[in-house]
Amino acid sequence: MKAQQKLRNKVRKDFHICVGLDTDINKIPKHLLNLDNPVLEFNKVIIENTIDYAAAYKLNFAFYEKDGAKGFENIIETIKLIPDDTLIIADAKRGDIGNTAKMYAESVFNYFRCDAVTVNPYMGIDSVRPFLEFKDKITFVLGLTSNPSAEDFELKKLNSGEYLYREVIRKINEWNTENNCGVVFGATKYKSLTENINLLKGLFTLLPGVGTQGGKLEDIVKLFGENNYEDYLINVSRALIYADDSKKFGTATRKKLIEYNEIVSNILN
Amino acid sequence: MKAQQKLRNKVRKDFHICVGLDTDINKIPKHLLNLDNPVLEFNKVIIENTIDYAAAYKLNFAFYEKDGAKGFENIIETIKLIPDDTLIIADAKRGDIGNTAKMYAESVFNYFRCDAVTVNPYMGIDSVRPFLEFKDKITFVLGLTSNPSAEDFELKKLNSGEYLYREVIRKINEWNTENNCGVVFGATKYKSLTENINLLKGLFTLLPGVGTQGGKLEDIVKLFGENNYEDYLINVSRALIYADDSKKFGTATRKKLIEYNEIVSNILN
Repeated sequence: MKAQQKLRNKVRKDFHICVGLDTDINKIPKHLLNLDNPVLEFNKVIIENTIDYAAAYKLNFAFYEKDGAKGFENIIETIKLIPDDTLIIADAKRGDIGNTAKMYAESVFNYFRCDAVTVNPYMGIDSVRPFLEFKDKITFVLGLTSNPSAEDFELKKLNSGEYLYREVIRKINEWNTENNCGVVFGATKYKSLTENINLLKGLFTLLPGVGTQGGKLEDIVKLFGENNYEDYLINVSRALIYADDSKKFGTATRKKLIEYNEIVSNILN
Repeated sequence: MKAQQKLRNKVRKDFHICVGLDTDINKIPKHLLNLDNPVLEFNKVIIENTIDYAAAYKLNFAFYEKDGAKGFENIIETIKLIPDDTLIIADAKRGDIGNTAKMYAESVFNYFRCDAVTVNPYMGIDSVRPFLEFKDKITFVLGLTSNPSAEDFELKKLNSGEYLYREVIRKINEWNTENNCGVVFGATKYKSLTENINLLKGLFTLLPGVGTQGGKLEDIVKLFGENNYEDYLINVSRALIYADDSKKFGTATRKKLIEYNEIVSNILN
């Protein structure tokens, strides 16, 4: 199924929460540590408990890469646990030129069989085009990120009077001839989000930063709802997957996700 | 040995060429394809033939990641073939925030045991700091890249009148309190290089783009020599490792690298 279709089928059910599988062996429930592969077992329980309520899953590649080949096996095995009707985002923030970007795109879409990817815009279209050639996938380009040092460059003003990140989002709109472009916009930047909602409307939007980082779920859903804009995913990682550290962690995460979905649904209806 | 020391020991011998191990199974000599692990065998022959003349090695992670767990094994095994006195750069162009950047730094420096890394500045210091905490390693931040679409953002002017990439290089200089910062500057951008040579002087500089991409070795070495600036590496990948596709490819690469070194040495002395 096309990535675009997977996303739309979920948002039509008012599912907008993307489960962030930032699985850290130091944070998962201690009783799992006796098992052969605690990380994979943790992901399995989280997926089983959330699959009926999740809009998508996002795998933060850094958390797996640090374990080398074993970590990459865990990405592959985790992806196998997610049914084909649910979008999988490779949060890899790739950025390199032509030849190399092509390799990264093949890695993410062909080898790992993800539906979507995050990429970095700094080097321009050369570094994004090889991903966009996969028309049935979604490429989320960093726009305005949720971290404080977005100030360093993203929020610098250009001599046109435009912020750099807005120039980036304008370009993403230009690149979006195949309806396969998305943008990453930090949920912690609510004021900027309200000012840019029209610029985002033709794109898929991925909003990290809700939960531990401080972004407010209600505000975002209200804003998008009022603007009749539904192609967005709100990522929650730590606040969701580490909801509990007992043997009942799966149930706790499911309960939390259902609560989030109810908040969303109540605002939208 | 500290990364800084490894680099300096080589440049003092007038070695400035970094061998780019962008190993692509579709481009390596055909006779290797019958072996169990053609990529690793290719790297082994290249390293054996260049180790006495190379200033450093750069592994382009994309070329390995696309083979998943097997590719990662090949990175590990390739790194084992390079003696400890020679700098190894993980060309991974990582860029993510705090928690995640920390994971990437651990992956590159602790798991893969590389001496240096390339990172993307878009998200600001939050995404670079976790790498800089490794004081004995070198973190090369993207400045001006060698590709045409550097125009999209890097070459945009800020309202201060400064190009974005120059603002980035200024920041890298600020971040360089531990003498572990470097910058990536495309060798194809010779005019810009001449204009920015003073801004680079306190940093390690990695220059990709010589050879297939069109940057001129002689021009760069002359410019750096005239400015008494020696902490730089010129990366050559395809023009060097694919110098020949016969069974004598190792010898051909060695010969080519020696030729490059003679060009450098003749200019500097």
